[in-house]
Amino acid sequence: MIHGGGKIATEISASLGIEAKMVEGRRITDIETLRVVTMVYAGLINKNIVAQLQAKGANAIGLTGADGNIIKAKKRPVKEIDYGFVGDLDESSISVTSLTHLLQAGFVPVLCAITHDGNTQLLNTNADTIASAVAVAMSAQYETHLVYCFEKKGVLKDVDDDATVVREIRSSDFEPLKAEGIVVGGMIPKLHNAFEAINKGVTSVYIGKADELAEIAMGTFGTKLLK
Amino acid sequence: MIHGGGKIATEISASLGIEAKMVEGRRITDIETLRVVTMVYAGLINKNIVAQLQAKGANAIGLTGADGNIIKAKKRPVKEIDYGFVGDLDESSISVTSLTHLLQAGFVPVLCAITHDGNTQLLNTNADTIASAVAVAMSAQYETHLVYCFEKKGVLKDVDDDATVVREIRSSDFEPLKAEGIVVGGMIPKLHNAFEAINKGVTSVYIGKADELAEIAMGTFGTKLLK
Repeated sequence: MIHGGGKIATEISASLGIEAKMVEGRRITDIETLRVVTMVYAGLINKNIVAQLQAKGANAIGLTGADGNIIKAKKRPVKEIDYGFVGDLDESSISVTSLTHLLQAGFVPVLCAITHDGNTQLLNTNADTIASAVAVAMSAQYETHLVYCFEKKGVLKDVDDDATVVREIRSSDFEPLKAEGIVVGGMIPKLHNAFEAINKGVTSVYIGKADELAEIAMGTFGTKLLK
Repeated sequence: MIHGGGKIATEISASLGIEAKMVEGRRITDIETLRVVTMVYAGLINKNIVAQLQAKGANAIGLTGADGNIIKAKKRPVKEIDYGFVGDLDESSISVTSLTHLLQAGFVPVLCAITHDGNTQLLNTNADTIASAVAVAMSAQYETHLVYCFEKKGVLKDVDDDATVVREIRSSDFEPLKAEGIVVGGMIPKLHNAFEAINKGVTSVYIGKADELAEIAMGTFGTKLLK
């Protein structure tokens, strides 16, 4: 499981008098913001999720990318914009060995959106990016299904009508759906990343609403993306 | 490794406008304070320690007692004082199985002073208490040495003179040292707990200054307590 927590981080930042710094609509992770997201993602949210999973009988273990060196990132180079302490991932970022040790010992890893550079620096990395990178890396050894939870029931033909979920999209459908205007806006990069994960070895990607996750067993959860 | 972080938690609490609640000199963990210590211990401090250990080549993994159900505590019963969300430990609190899985996989567990009750509630537990309980529990399977780091160089004959470290104390010396007034004040419960750990199976307990820890290999670190 992989989670972020941007909304709570924004609230706590405000309580601490730290202003969210945005450049061209993108959040800048200065050193103060990094402290807050480390506290909120790795502490407050991660440990409450773990305690809740434990109470349900799942042997959850909450981690950042620093723990067990699971995700080694590179600080994003400063170009037009200095994003601050943001970590980018590449092919070698994920330690499949560490994750496999944890899985084999019966743990359920719960990762938050914090990584490290291997040289003492913690970094902030987008949770969707981590999810995709972990799924791709693990697909070398396991059949891997990636499930994205967001506020909608899936890809909708009519964005205002939850009854219009597209049940299945194959990669060959992606361009036509964009051309028809069914896949629009923020959904385009989401699906682009999902199909990229599939091209790199992930078996399927689901996109849907968190509180309907149990339906995945019935095949009625959100939108399923396939090669 | 086991750590707390009370001073930083107090600073962050103050920044958030949360007053430290003390009753008879003891900190009360109300729900707001629990949120702060979860953020500070499990997030900010734990993950920075892990990132620093990783940079030194130790495969650290940072955990609370909720992770892997490593430490299941009981919320302290309300008697004269309501300590709030404080967790007490007993003989069955520590999961030796989970810790052993992590050690066998080559991880270095870094535990913070947060536990859980197994029923979704995170709890605040004294770090010294956790250290002792973990050492005792692990001593059933491993030869266990417990090292306490604090601000002094060890047990001092003259509390104002760092050159007067008592190198070794056997449990039979404890009562005479108290009678002579060499072990006084806050050192009495510390040594009491240390000898209790030794009586329950820990081979030795060291007490000394964190920045002299490397001296433990030379046998010149702090005070060594033995049966």
